[in-house]
Amino acid sequence: MIGKALEQAREVIRWCRQLSALSEDRNTITRTCLSRPMREVHTALAGWMARLGMAVRVDAIGNLRGVYSPHASSPPAAAAPRLYIGSHLDTVPNGGAFDGVLGTVLAVALVERLEGKRFPFAIEVVGFSDEEGVRFGAPFLGSRAMAGTFDPALLDRLDDSGRSLRDAIKHFGLDPGRIPDAQVTGHALGYVEFHIEQGPVLENLNLPLAVVDVISGQSRADVTFDGVAGHAGTTPMSMRKDALACAASWIADVEREGNAVSGLVATAGRITVEPGASNVVPGRATVSLDVRHPEDRMRKESVERLVKSAEDIAARRGLRATWEPRLDQSSVAMDAPMAAMLDRALERSGVPTHRMFSGAGHDAMILAGKMPAGMVFLRCEGGISHNPAENVRDEDVAAALEAGAQFLSSLEPAHRD
Amino acid sequence: MIGKALEQAREVIRWCRQLSALSEDRNTITRTCLSRPMREVHTALAGWMARLGMAVRVDAIGNLRGVYSPHASSPPAAAAPRLYIGSHLDTVPNGGAFDGVLGTVLAVALVERLEGKRFPFAIEVVGFSDEEGVRFGAPFLGSRAMAGTFDPALLDRLDDSGRSLRDAIKHFGLDPGRIPDAQVTGHALGYVEFHIEQGPVLENLNLPLAVVDVISGQSRADVTFDGVAGHAGTTPMSMRKDALACAASWIADVEREGNAVSGLVATAGRITVEPGASNVVPGRATVSLDVRHPEDRMRKESVERLVKSAEDIAARRGLRATWEPRLDQSSVAMDAPMAAMLDRALERSGVPTHRMFSGAGHDAMILAGKMPAGMVFLRCEGGISHNPAENVRDEDVAAALEAGAQFLSSLEPAHRD
Repeated sequence: MIGKALEQAREVIRWCRQLSALSEDRNTITRTCLSRPMREVHTALAGWMARLGMAVRVDAIGNLRGVYSPHASSPPAAAAPRLYIGSHLDTVPNGGAFDGVLGTVLAVALVERLEGKRFPFAIEVVGFSDEEGVRFGAPFLGSRAMAGTFDPALLDRLDDSGRSLRDAIKHFGLDPGRIPDAQVTGHALGYVEFHIEQGPVLENLNLPLAVVDVISGQSRADVTFDGVAGHAGTTPMSMRKDALACAASWIADVEREGNAVSGLVATAGRITVEPGASNVVPGRATVSLDVRHPEDRMRKESVERLVKSAEDIAARRGLRATWEPRLDQSSVAMDAPMAAMLDRALERSGVPTHRMFSGAGHDAMILAGKMPAGMVFLRCEGGISHNPAENVRDEDVAAALEAGAQFLSSLEPAHRD
Repeated sequence: MIGKALEQAREVIRWCRQLSALSEDRNTITRTCLSRPMREVHTALAGWMARLGMAVRVDAIGNLRGVYSPHASSPPAAAAPRLYIGSHLDTVPNGGAFDGVLGTVLAVALVERLEGKRFPFAIEVVGFSDEEGVRFGAPFLGSRAMAGTFDPALLDRLDDSGRSLRDAIKHFGLDPGRIPDAQVTGHALGYVEFHIEQGPVLENLNLPLAVVDVISGQSRADVTFDGVAGHAGTTPMSMRKDALACAASWIADVEREGNAVSGLVATAGRITVEPGASNVVPGRATVSLDVRHPEDRMRKESVERLVKSAEDIAARRGLRATWEPRLDQSSVAMDAPMAAMLDRALERSGVPTHRMFSGAGHDAMILAGKMPAGMVFLRCEGGISHNPAENVRDEDVAAALEAGAQFLSSLEPAHRD
């Protein structure tokens, strides 16, 4: 069985590598929602799914959806239970071959692995249209439509070329008026997503897979320090109100906070300085803050301490700190019974079980509002993601295929006709 | 006498304000070398100088030069001693009305104040073509030509529109081949420059003027910290090699060094972070460093400590620091006997004497290699310069005019025919 899984894993990886060539850009992997290469990905995967006897459609937001019916000869009954498996098909600019795509391809491979065997429930494979939010500056477009939480105001969002989401949908040959039809309405057993970890934890623990139990909440803000610009040669140190020196002192506090609170990550990822010349004392510095924790209370307490620290540091130096909140997103728990089933599936596949939280957002977070949702992380090389160097091991993908097959089997008795 | 000086001071300030309207840009004060508004400034000042009986020319680098001969009816003899007084006529983009221009206008006003009285030496007023270095990215073009240290390779430098300095000189109606003729060859008594302080020291001390005894040396460098970019949500704090956090720690050291060493200024004025997204741990940060001190040894020791601190901080965090030196300019002492004469001139004008160093470079620094050079700083409002808000007080300009007149008188006995 392991030999077969390894062979299939290599096939899955080949698929991912081949799909990565379908890009908006010859030299990078860049595929945003409703783009020409996205259509090519749909064509390739739809062909494969059709060969497996699945009924394939693209819904109005651009999700690729293939249904494997309980019956070879007929579509599932409207009220029949259905399990959703998938991930996203879009990438960040200059992204990798596995982020999202691996989970979608792996879902099709799980159906292929059934070799025609049917379950008492339907399996719907979903390749989400947009998880990264790159093209229209709003993430999770595909899963929001499926969960029924898609805000129609998003249709007016413009991409960099000035085209609205509404027009992009039409241009892709779809009808934006039918987005409500993308919503799941029947008896959903749940949603399972396989995804690369996009971090170094599993590699560090030398583990192939982990079951996700919670997706961290996030706070984002921009913090501006206003001081006074001055000549770098003629303004004595004691008379300066240096915005960059002030920001640097606060960035040290951000790092200290991250180190002090278990499970917290706190990041200053962007900084702009005005006027930003080597011979001018900076008059203004704006720093981005990103804080995440699986527990919302812990995250909020950290953010409060960092607000206070920014104000204190600025006041002590005679500057002014201005805090602009950008995002306050609660943590989302994965479904506990489903996580337990995924644990058992890992055990039965012969890999150690491990629970972890996700510091990144995923479609499973959106679907969790609609149905029981679960996620399995795969170790990724060096923890590297959103990068052409993204890589996975054959054995880990084989383990994920095994675990997926075990999970499907475990669902069977409960839902026998 | 004070009443007259105050009236003349107001006239000087009016001149500066009027010349500031001669700009490349309707809404700002922006005048680079060899530009159309620079010609208009030349025309205005040349007219004034001619009315005072001065022989005016524009040399091949674009310096405006007016000679007030010892004899009303004839030019000075080739070997006659000559005192140079002036400053620069170019501005930074969106600059102020007084930086450079004040010193040039004040020099003409000093000749006007003589009311036809002649000295046994010639007085040459110089309005330098380019001190700021904005247009061709190289400062002190005018004073270098006069000092005989102009590097002809500079003629190939291009401005933003792609025009070379050589072409710009020709386009201004001058002959780049005659730049060597701009050089001072006769018996130079010295060079005196009046200039706004461009810093807050005199305002803080409540003093109108100061005699500059040394122009600080400068070190500039770019310091790059190379870490590893990572996902802000999925990279635990303990596994990060965050280049911005590392740079922030070093920026704190830069400030500490500036505070610890008397007379030192140390500035991190510019920072760039890659990739520079709010949700990505920074992989690379580059910070500019500007260190100045009137004593070269002190400056070099500080730079060495900051090199070591960058390396230590980076090593401690598992990052790499790369140091790229950009400038290492020695301090330049003003001529001691001339500074002493300027002290006495201040005393005789009834203003307190004060010595200070200049943290900024000036044409006097370049001329100091050719002849005894001296500088007098005028208090400027709020220490603000390179800004439309640049301002000076009538009384301070009046004090500078008095001091200038006293200085000229003090030179007379020593050089009587």
